[in-house]
Amino acid sequence: MNLPTTQRRFVLARRPEGVPVEADFRMETVALAPPGPGEVTVRTVHLSLDPYVRGTLTGRDLGHPPVHPGELIPGRSVGQVAGTGEWVVTETGWQEYATVPAASVRPVAVPPGVPRTARLGVLGTPGLTAYACVSRLLCPGVGDTVVVSSATGAVGGAAGQLARLAGARTVAIVGGPEKCEIAVEHFGYTAAVDRHDPGWADALAAACPDGVDGYLHMAGGTVLEGVLNRLTVGGRVVLAGLPEHANEVGQTVLPAGALMRTRAVVHGFVVYDHEDLRPRFDRRVGGLVADGRLRLLEEVHEGLESAPGAFVRLMGGHNVGKSIVRVAPEAAP
Amino acid sequence: MNLPTTQRRFVLARRPEGVPVEADFRMETVALAPPGPGEVTVRTVHLSLDPYVRGTLTGRDLGHPPVHPGELIPGRSVGQVAGTGEWVVTETGWQEYATVPAASVRPVAVPPGVPRTARLGVLGTPGLTAYACVSRLLCPGVGDTVVVSSATGAVGGAAGQLARLAGARTVAIVGGPEKCEIAVEHFGYTAAVDRHDPGWADALAAACPDGVDGYLHMAGGTVLEGVLNRLTVGGRVVLAGLPEHANEVGQTVLPAGALMRTRAVVHGFVVYDHEDLRPRFDRRVGGLVADGRLRLLEEVHEGLESAPGAFVRLMGGHNVGKSIVRVAPEAAP
Repeated sequence: MNLPTTQRRFVLARRPEGVPVEADFRMETVALAPPGPGEVTVRTVHLSLDPYVRGTLTGRDLGHPPVHPGELIPGRSVGQVAGTGEWVVTETGWQEYATVPAASVRPVAVPPGVPRTARLGVLGTPGLTAYACVSRLLCPGVGDTVVVSSATGAVGGAAGQLARLAGARTVAIVGGPEKCEIAVEHFGYTAAVDRHDPGWADALAAACPDGVDGYLHMAGGTVLEGVLNRLTVGGRVVLAGLPEHANEVGQTVLPAGALMRTRAVVHGFVVYDHEDLRPRFDRRVGGLVADGRLRLLEEVHEGLESAPGAFVRLMGGHNVGKSIVRVAPEAAP
Repeated sequence: MNLPTTQRRFVLARRPEGVPVEADFRMETVALAPPGPGEVTVRTVHLSLDPYVRGTLTGRDLGHPPVHPGELIPGRSVGQVAGTGEWVVTETGWQEYATVPAASVRPVAVPPGVPRTARLGVLGTPGLTAYACVSRLLCPGVGDTVVVSSATGAVGGAAGQLARLAGARTVAIVGGPEKCEIAVEHFGYTAAVDRHDPGWADALAAACPDGVDGYLHMAGGTVLEGVLNRLTVGGRVVLAGLPEHANEVGQTVLPAGALMRTRAVVHGFVVYDHEDLRPRFDRRVGGLVADGRLRLLEEVHEGLESAPGAFVRLMGGHNVGKSIVRVAPEAAP
C-alpha cells in the first residue's frame, strides 16, 4: 500500500447550535506526512460515529478534549496499518489516514464469524456501556421489567438483549413504527412503544402491567417523566444519555417526589468510570456475540463524505443500530 | 392512678392547605371508656410531633393510614400504663389517654442518664432515619464532606453527628443565625450556612472547598439545587424529606445533567424500608448517647393545648431540635 501525499478530512466549520447540521462540518484536503519514529500511519476503513463527539464540539464532553473550529473531528476507527495491513482499532478522527503513536493502536480481535466493526459497537465502548449499565447498576432480577430508551441504538440494542438474557421482560422505547418492529423482531424485546405516538404513556403502562423495575435512560425529559410515573418501589434508574448533554437543548429534570415515593436509586453514568469491567465484558459479551445469542445491528454509510449527514442523523435520533462510515474498502498490505 | 371519665383530644378540623395553621385542629372533650380485655390505657406524658403526620392529614403518607376531618391526630408518645405506672412507647395520638392493645406497647428502655424522651427522637424513628441514611446510603469516608439540611432537627442533628463520628467534615444548612450557632456549638458541625442569607450558596462553597461528597436532603428545591452544584464526582445524595411531601407546596426537581456530570447516586429514602437496621441502631446509637458522644436536643412545649402551635412551628421549619409536647407530669402508679 503506497501512501498518497494528500488526504481528505473533516474539520469543525463552526460550533453547532442544538442538533448539528451538515454545514457545521467542512471537508479539507491536506498534506499527508509520512510517519515519524515510533509512529504508524493507519488507513481508516470503518469510522465510528458516536454521540460523545457532539459534546467535544462545545467542549462539554467528560472524557475528551474540546474541538475548536478548524480542528479535526474526533472518531475511533477500525483500520489497517500502512505497510503491514494489520487490522487495528485507534483514534483516527474523520479522515482517510491517521498518523499515530504505534503504542496507541490495538489489534482488532473478534470471535470467528463476527465482523471487525463489532469492535466499534457491541464489542466496543457502546457495548461496554450497555454491559456496565445492566450488570452493575440495573441488576435485573428474573421476571423484572426493564425499560430501555433509544432501544435500537448502539447501546440500547445491546442493553435490551443483556437484560433479557438476565431473565428480565424488556420493553423498548423508540421513535417510529419501523424501530418498534426492529426492537421486537431483531433485538427480542418483549414489547416496544413508539414515543412519537401521543398515547405512548398508556402504551408503556400496558406493556409494563407490573410497573418498571429498571430503566436505562438515553432520551428526552418527557420520556423520563413518563417512565418514572411507572417505576416500582425499589426501582433503579440509570441516566446514560441526555439530549442536552449532546445537543444543548432544554434541561432534563427528575421529580424528587417520585424518587422518594418509589425509594428509587438513580445513577448518573459515564462509561469511563467502568473500565475495570472491560476484561469481563470482553469475555462475556464476546462469547454471546460469537455464539449468536447477542445480535448486532449496523447502519453503514458509504464514503468519508457521508460522515456529516450520518452524524446529523445520529444526533437527531434517526439512526437504526450502530452508525458506521465505510471510509475505504479493505486493502491488501 | 384513677382514670377520669372524660379526656381532651385534638381532631382534624379541616384539611390543611400548604403549611398547616392552628385552625386546622380542633380540641374536643370526649368520654374515656375503661380498657376492655387485652387492652391497656396509657396516660400520654411526652407526645412526639413528627413531619410524617402532615402527610396523613391528606392521605399522602407512605406508612400510615390517612386522617379524615373529625378524626384523632396521630402521634407516638412515651407514657405510663394506667394501674401499673410502667413506662411505655406507643401510638397514642394527640390525646391525654389512649386505650390500646396491650401487645402494641413497648417498654421504654434507655441507657442510664438518658431521658425517656430520647425514644421519640435520637433513639427512635428520627434517629433510625439518620443512622440508615448515614451508615447505609451516604457511607462517608474519612475526610469526606457531608452536608445536612434541616441540620438541627430531630433527624439532621443526629445525622450530622454520625457523619462526623465516621470521620467526615460536616456542614449544616439551617434557617437563621441562631440555628447556625447551635449546629456548630451543640452538634459539632464543622461549619454552618444560613439558607436565609442571600449569599448562602457562596457560603456553602466556602464551607466545602473540596466539594460535597454526600448530602442528606430534607429542605426545599433551592437548597437541593445549590448543593448539587457543589457535588463531587461520585457524590451521594439521599432524599429523606421534601416540603411538598409534607406541605404540598411546589415540586422539587433534580437536574439530570448535574447527576450525569458527577456520576451521582441518588436515593429516595423512606425509613420503613430500613427496620432491619433497628437492632444494630439500638446498640450503636444507644451506646453513643449513653457515653455522651452523641448529643440530643429537644424543644418541649407544655400542655396538650400547645400541640397545634408546636406542629405549625415544626412544619414551618422553625423548630430547634426534636419537638415534644409534655402533655402531663409524671404520675405515681
